Amino acid sequence: MTRIAQESAAEALQYGPTEGFDETKAAVRMVMEAEGMSPEPEDIIVTTGGQQALDLIAKTLVDPGDVVVCEAPTYPGAVPVFCSYEAETHQVPMDDDGMRVDQLEELCERLASEGRKPKFIYSVPSFQNPAGVTLSLERRRRLVELAHMREILVIEDNPYGLLRYEGEAQAPLYQLDGGDYVIYVGTLSKILSPGIRIGWAVAPPPVMEKIALGKQATDLCTSTLSQYFALEYFGEGRWRDYIGSLREIYRSRRDAMLEALDRHFPPQATWTRPHGGLFVWATLPDYIDTSDLLAKALRENVAFVPGAAAYVDGRRGSNSMRLNFSASTADEIREGVRRIGAVLSEQVQLYETITSEHRLPQPAQREPSGDVVPFRAPRGEA
Amino acid sequence: MTRIAQESAAEALQYGPTEGFDETKAAVRMVMEAEGMSPEPEDIIVTTGGQQALDLIAKTLVDPGDVVVCEAPTYPGAVPVFCSYEAETHQVPMDDDGMRVDQLEELCERLASEGRKPKFIYSVPSFQNPAGVTLSLERRRRLVELAHMREILVIEDNPYGLLRYEGEAQAPLYQLDGGDYVIYVGTLSKILSPGIRIGWAVAPPPVMEKIALGKQATDLCTSTLSQYFALEYFGEGRWRDYIGSLREIYRSRRDAMLEALDRHFPPQATWTRPHGGLFVWATLPDYIDTSDLLAKALRENVAFVPGAAAYVDGRRGSNSMRLNFSASTADEIREGVRRIGAVLSEQVQLYETITSEHRLPQPAQREPSGDVVPFRAPRGEA
Repeated sequence: MTRIAQESAAEALQYGPTEGFDETKAAVRMVMEAEGMSPEPEDIIVTTGGQQALDLIAKTLVDPGDVVVCEAPTYPGAVPVFCSYEAETHQVPMDDDGMRVDQLEELCERLASEGRKPKFIYSVPSFQNPAGVTLSLERRRRLVELAHMREILVIEDNPYGLLRYEGEAQAPLYQLDGGDYVIYVGTLSKILSPGIRIGWAVAPPPVMEKIALGKQATDLCTSTLSQYFALEYFGEGRWRDYIGSLREIYRSRRDAMLEALDRHFPPQATWTRPHGGLFVWATLPDYIDTSDLLAKALRENVAFVPGAAAYVDGRRGSNSMRLNFSASTADEIREGVRRIGAVLSEQVQLYETITSEHRLPQPAQREPSGDVVPFRAPRGEA
Repeated sequence: MTRIAQESAAEALQYGPTEGFDETKAAVRMVMEAEGMSPEPEDIIVTTGGQQALDLIAKTLVDPGDVVVCEAPTYPGAVPVFCSYEAETHQVPMDDDGMRVDQLEELCERLASEGRKPKFIYSVPSFQNPAGVTLSLERRRRLVELAHMREILVIEDNPYGLLRYEGEAQAPLYQLDGGDYVIYVGTLSKILSPGIRIGWAVAPPPVMEKIALGKQATDLCTSTLSQYFALEYFGEGRWRDYIGSLREIYRSRRDAMLEALDRHFPPQATWTRPHGGLFVWATLPDYIDTSDLLAKALRENVAFVPGAAAYVDGRRGSNSMRLNFSASTADEIREGVRRIGAVLSEQVQLYETITSEHRLPQPAQREPSGDVVPFRAPRGEA
């Protein structure tokens, strides 16, 4: 920051080009090359965080009523994007190997029989937000094949790819596809800073042209100050080491969380065991509503994201929760999980006492949270 | 910047609240108070430049086919916003006292007779971009009365209000209205830096709630680094002096431009004489197309914005141009205007020679550029 102030303050405070500085694009390429991708500079646009990349892609591609497909659960920040452009959003379930591409194929087949086709398939293939699971290489290949065969665009959102704590890196969809059908979204939020709001999209020229027009109408250009800050950072040449140190820190925090969950969560709960990223996804008994549970947890000064935020219809996922292990120390994580576990166990015991004493019927079966359910957002809802 | 790095680097690099930090809102209030306004903090949202404020307001309020009214010419950056939300945009002409509010009233009356009403009226009342003219106090009062009487929202976009070089300040529409029907858009781009991308909107609670939802979906939050930078700047307490020095510099540049126009532009041209802001708007003979003229001027290494960019239909304004006097020194301005004037005079002489020698008919009369012409953007155009 001091260098910017001394050497380039005037430029750093001026407008920049809509698509971002060439130097920023070069930094983006360097980051993507670390995962085996080599996009053309002219296919890159620098955005105000990855969130804006998502928004601009949806703005470019989605007309009201268009079909969009994403994972179940999906990134909670994608839900309002799909809703605001009035997409008919279908969510495809996941297991430990990520999105069930076989069910995606069935969905596409069913849509095709109605003469319809998704505008795009949105996926966070590595260390998914919120589920923490990773799409297997075999499924990645099938997904890219499906995209080519059916001529459907895939949005690959990859904020966490470099944050792997065990196992081998999987090829990004963009690399497998070569940039024909895969539009890539990246961000510096998880490997440098979210507060500078720097992300990017990589898309083929006809889509990129529209995204750039949208970007101009939306905020003219990405902060020059932020771009200069990022360039100074990458210019120091220590960014790989920094990510290495993040991996060490986050791995130990993940381990602390998984151990604490084993110890403090009741046996009726299950959760994912992520190989990277920031999140664990826990699934609780059907009769637990995590929005209610959050209110109780907040009284104990601990928070999580209720699972319903990861579903477009807001009715599913209510017995699940997203737990973040990147933002707190291992000790804080242990204590936080202990407190949530205590509140949760209390609820479980209360329910079991009531149902066994009074022989209450089980609550009506929810739609299985893995089902593929279309949902059309109400018109104009933000 | 050094202070941020030393004292609050960790916070400056983290996410911030969607609506902006309380301290940033306090700075916004301080800036607005300098023009006589006192918004409530909860009515303020900090945005990624004023451009995002405009975009979010349109996103919140406009459904396809809705009527939007703006000035003719209007801010070129507003045109793609209105088009991307598929508004039917009507442009009301201006004179030296700004928007012809009498013609606005006629338009509203005509729309009312069809059972229609504008979603909002968009105006840059002070030192308008691109025309440089300022809405008179009498017309400001009539505009606010009209808004109350017909219950129509007005978007007041005021980037240049503090950059007045002569005459007395006019009350902002927001002040006259009290925040009932006027939504206010401000920015730090012209009084601090455009490269930090900080703007804001002030709107009543029901609208603000939707704008905040849109902001969250669009880019989560405004750059924390930029907000901290702005706060350090305002914390130094010299911002009024800095604006004072900007006024001095820009006044002399404006004077240089007006003198150079008198000297170098042919008598067939007319132009506005702004009391503030950054722009002069020149109107040339009908047979001059400023897009063609720009190509010739660029060969002389000087540029301007062709007037057609300030009209939603792209057919009008082609004989006008926006000239900026803030970004170059007085000497550069004199030389730049001289070069444009030379290219222009050549075109005028050529035309007059041809028409007098060959008695060519006058080109078909354009629609008078002051007329109120509705224009519906093609569906989905960005």
